Amino acid sequence: MTKTIDELETPCVLVDFDIAEANIDRFQSYCDEVDLKSRPHIKTHKIPKLAARQAAAGGVGITCQKISEAEVMVDAGIDDILITYNIVGKPKVAKLRALADRCTLSVVADNDVVIKGLSEGFADRAVPLPVLVECDTGAGRCGVQTPERAASLARMINGFPGIRFEGLMTYPASGTLEDQHVVNDWLRRAKDIIEAEGLACTRVSSGGSPNMWRAHESPVVTEHRAGTYVYNDRSLMEKGVCDASDCALTVLATIISCPTDSRAIIDAGSKVLTSDLLGLQGYGYVYEAPDAQISELSEEHGTLDLSASNWRPAVGDRVRIIPNHCCVVSNTADTVWELRGDEVIGAEPVAARGKVL
Amino acid sequence: MTKTIDELETPCVLVDFDIAEANIDRFQSYCDEVDLKSRPHIKTHKIPKLAARQAAAGGVGITCQKISEAEVMVDAGIDDILITYNIVGKPKVAKLRALADRCTLSVVADNDVVIKGLSEGFADRAVPLPVLVECDTGAGRCGVQTPERAASLARMINGFPGIRFEGLMTYPASGTLEDQHVVNDWLRRAKDIIEAEGLACTRVSSGGSPNMWRAHESPVVTEHRAGTYVYNDRSLMEKGVCDASDCALTVLATIISCPTDSRAIIDAGSKVLTSDLLGLQGYGYVYEAPDAQISELSEEHGTLDLSASNWRPAVGDRVRIIPNHCCVVSNTADTVWELRGDEVIGAEPVAARGKVL
Repeated sequence: MTKTIDELETPCVLVDFDIAEANIDRFQSYCDEVDLKSRPHIKTHKIPKLAARQAAAGGVGITCQKISEAEVMVDAGIDDILITYNIVGKPKVAKLRALADRCTLSVVADNDVVIKGLSEGFADRAVPLPVLVECDTGAGRCGVQTPERAASLARMINGFPGIRFEGLMTYPASGTLEDQHVVNDWLRRAKDIIEAEGLACTRVSSGGSPNMWRAHESPVVTEHRAGTYVYNDRSLMEKGVCDASDCALTVLATIISCPTDSRAIIDAGSKVLTSDLLGLQGYGYVYEAPDAQISELSEEHGTLDLSASNWRPAVGDRVRIIPNHCCVVSNTADTVWELRGDEVIGAEPVAARGKVL
Repeated sequence: MTKTIDELETPCVLVDFDIAEANIDRFQSYCDEVDLKSRPHIKTHKIPKLAARQAAAGGVGITCQKISEAEVMVDAGIDDILITYNIVGKPKVAKLRALADRCTLSVVADNDVVIKGLSEGFADRAVPLPVLVECDTGAGRCGVQTPERAASLARMINGFPGIRFEGLMTYPASGTLEDQHVVNDWLRRAKDIIEAEGLACTRVSSGGSPNMWRAHESPVVTEHRAGTYVYNDRSLMEKGVCDASDCALTVLATIISCPTDSRAIIDAGSKVLTSDLLGLQGYGYVYEAPDAQISELSEEHGTLDLSASNWRPAVGDRVRIIPNHCCVVSNTADTVWELRGDEVIGAEPVAARGKVL
């Protein structure tokens, strides 16, 4: 006998797998249509079952940010992984090598220390490790700063044993139409320089969910890494990328106090919703009252400011919240409740939660 | 053979137990001096061993925010617990009752729905459950809004079977000298009204770390619940409550990229440091370069803005960071490394991590 949502203790994280699967299939169809490879980033769900579903839909593999996440996914049978992270230090490179023996693995680098470290760890390996050069095309995080430097690292990679240059990788800025062109021009220049030197640059990997429906506007890109799209969240709603009905992950919470006429307190705080604002006002979208603002969070309390809303809840009422940023919410929960519509199928472990190494 | 910090993989959370124990003892001495009971809030460390150390130092018991946290602590032998949270719904009240059979338990309420629910669950119990009325003395979270309403709920509690009124509880506002007087006046009025009606109000519980050295300025208060003080953090440093050398919890991270002269990237992002700003600029205090600002966090990357600093790290260098808010950092980690100075004693499970029910 299955449970209903009403029987679940709060606060808890709900994932409607019907919605998640529809999100996976919709983006895969788009990728198929525009002849782009899809390599979903599992940081959003951290659940092997959903990674397998993304592969089954037609993805060429998955993306992980950390080796420890990738280990969880390989343990569960995923066989093609790109780790989009500079791997630093001998212990981590040793783990990477062990992982490379268990799946089709590729990795990135944006500096010579990382390249030398990878080569030392893989030097005596029969099959060299494919390495992509990470490029900063405007996001201002990791990545080489110029196409010329990308070419120089490509040469360096091919000059070291145990590794080989395979292509370019970027995590782009916000995803406006202009950004898509900037990203494309940047990567195109780098690829042209590299190929003019006689090196093959067979793979160009970009990513992001805000810009995912515009991925075809960067034609140099061969594969796209979307993460958040599997669940969607309030940040993507605000950007017009999805509607509330496309959001698979919600937080179920209970009203525990109504201290004043315009203030209600829920039992979900920053330990569940997290403090991620992503530039938004308030900490989530309340289904039952979209004009109520989650104005403050402490660790176990959320404050609903009702001054702009006619909605007046009672102690014991429940609300469902679309968080600002679903990926970090996944990282708070040991398990999520798998839903299909109103039916609770069971508790699904978030197997790669907390994997930061 | 013990490890050194240099052998630890990053990112990871370090807790210097020497510093934590000194923090515990210093505040306990203060409480003894001003004749105040100490009931530390375990939300900061979530570790039974440290809860036991707080009790051994002279605390009258501990404070938990959620039943699931209290269950972990009772399992580990802690025997006196105040849960400072409105318990809503039959399943939770049933768990509370089971817990009450295993330790000296008290709880709070700020509304009649909670009071009736507690009474229903405890009605046939020989020994009634002590209940404190939660008062909003200025923090604007939970709590009754007036001393008169506190008195009315005190009467209501004593009118229901299975529960008895024991006193008042507040989580005060920021902790200025003025606030201490406001809190004291508020609680004093409520206690006077309640006692004038012939009810005993034997316990008045306040809390907070920012104001902990001023607790004696609210003489009506009989017990103080400090949480953050056990570790301290950047928010308390900024308030002048502690120095960097009093901070027991730090995050160890590695420089993984130096994309520009004024930008370095560390392998700790919001999955470790969290996005809690607590009104501060930047996401932590970097020991090695206090003038470097952790200007941006994504999930696995932290961006160090070095434009105001002369410090120039290299890829592979390590930094130790005092986070803005140590309590939420504890909630990200399955284990922390127990340090004594530079020596790594071992991995300590954060047994009550993620306990939100």
